[in-house]
Amino acid sequence: MAAMHGGYKTVSRPYNGGAFFRVEETVTRHGDQEFVRHVVRHPGGVAVVALSGRSAVCVEQYRPAVQRILLEVPAGRPKPGEDPEQTGRRELLEETGCEPTEMVHLTRFYNAPCFCDGVSEVFVTRVRFANEASLPAEDLPTHVRLIDLDDVEYLIRQGAIVDAKTIIALLLARSWCLQASGEST
Amino acid sequence: MAAMHGGYKTVSRPYNGGAFFRVEETVTRHGDQEFVRHVVRHPGGVAVVALSGRSAVCVEQYRPAVQRILLEVPAGRPKPGEDPEQTGRRELLEETGCEPTEMVHLTRFYNAPCFCDGVSEVFVTRVRFANEASLPAEDLPTHVRLIDLDDVEYLIRQGAIVDAKTIIALLLARSWCLQASGEST
Repeated sequence: MAAMHGGYKTVSRPYNGGAFFRVEETVTRHGDQEFVRHVVRHPGGVAVVALSGRSAVCVEQYRPAVQRILLEVPAGRPKPGEDPEQTGRRELLEETGCEPTEMVHLTRFYNAPCFCDGVSEVFVTRVRFANEASLPAEDLPTHVRLIDLDDVEYLIRQGAIVDAKTIIALLLARSWCLQASGEST
Repeated sequence: MAAMHGGYKTVSRPYNGGAFFRVEETVTRHGDQEFVRHVVRHPGGVAVVALSGRSAVCVEQYRPAVQRILLEVPAGRPKPGEDPEQTGRRELLEETGCEPTEMVHLTRFYNAPCFCDGVSEVFVTRVRFANEASLPAEDLPTHVRLIDLDDVEYLIRQGAIVDAKTIIALLLARSWCLQASGEST
C-alpha cells in the first residue's frame, strides 16, 4: 500500500521481525473452555498535558500507521531505566521545547486491551510561562498548537482530535482545571 | 508467559501467522528524510453506550492481552458487510441482551495511531426500558453492570475503568446527556 499525503509518502510491506512490539498467540483456559487470541505486547507510553493558562500545548505529527497528520498531546515511549514521569518530562521538552513544572499523574489506561497490553500514563503540568500572552505562537516550533481546553469537546466532535490518548488526556485535564479552580464539573 | 487470574489461565507464545490483524513495515519519505516504522493493520471496532436513565449498560470481560477482567462498554469488530451501526446493534444485543432504540453517532477515534490504524466508532442509544427501576440487576446477565454517568470520572480516577474506548465513550455520553437535557457542560 502506498499513499501520498501532505508531502509524506508511505510504502508498507508485511513484516514479522523485531519491531518495538511483538505479536503473541495466547491460549486461555477457564473451566472447561479454551479460547485462542492473538495479542500485541507493547511497551506503552506517557502523555503530558502541558498547560499555559487554559491552553494545552499540542503537536501536529505525521503518523505512518494512519497516513495522516494528527493533533496530539506530547507523548512517547519510555527509554530504558526511565520512570513514567521522566519519560513525560523528556518527551515534552523534546517535542515542544517546553519545560514542565510539577507533574501531576492524571490517569492510566489501556489503549486497546482487546488485543494489546500497552498502557498509557497521563500527566498534567503547567509550563514555565506566566500566562498565555507570554507564550506567543511565533516563538513555538511550527508543529506546536495551543488548544483551549474549552474547545476540546468541539474539536473532538468535528474530528479535529481523533487520537485516543489526546481525547482522554484533554478531557480529564479540563476537569482537573475546573476542580483546581474550585468550580464544579 | 503464563498467569492465573480469577479462574482464567493464559499461556502465550510468539506468533507470526494470520491473526485478525497483521503487522507491516512502513517506509515514509518526506523531502530528503526517510523513516521506518512498524505498524499494525486492524479492522477497528464499534462501541455502544446503552443508556437506561443516566446509567450505562457495561460489561465485565476477561482480556487475555492484559490478563485482567475489565469493565467496558459493549463493543466488537464488524462482520463482513456490516456498517458500523449494524455492528453496534448486534454487539449490544449479543453481549447484554439489550435492544437499542435510535443509534446516535458520538465520535470516532484511533485507539493507538502511533502504531495501529484501527478506528473505533462510538454510538449512544437508549435501551428499551421505561426507567432505571425497570432494569433490575437481577434480570441482567451476570457480567453486566450498570454505571451511573455521574460516577464515571470517579471510576476512572480510581482505576476501575481503564479501557480507552470506555473512558471516551462514557465521558462523551455524559456530555451528550447534559446537552440533551438542556444543561450546560
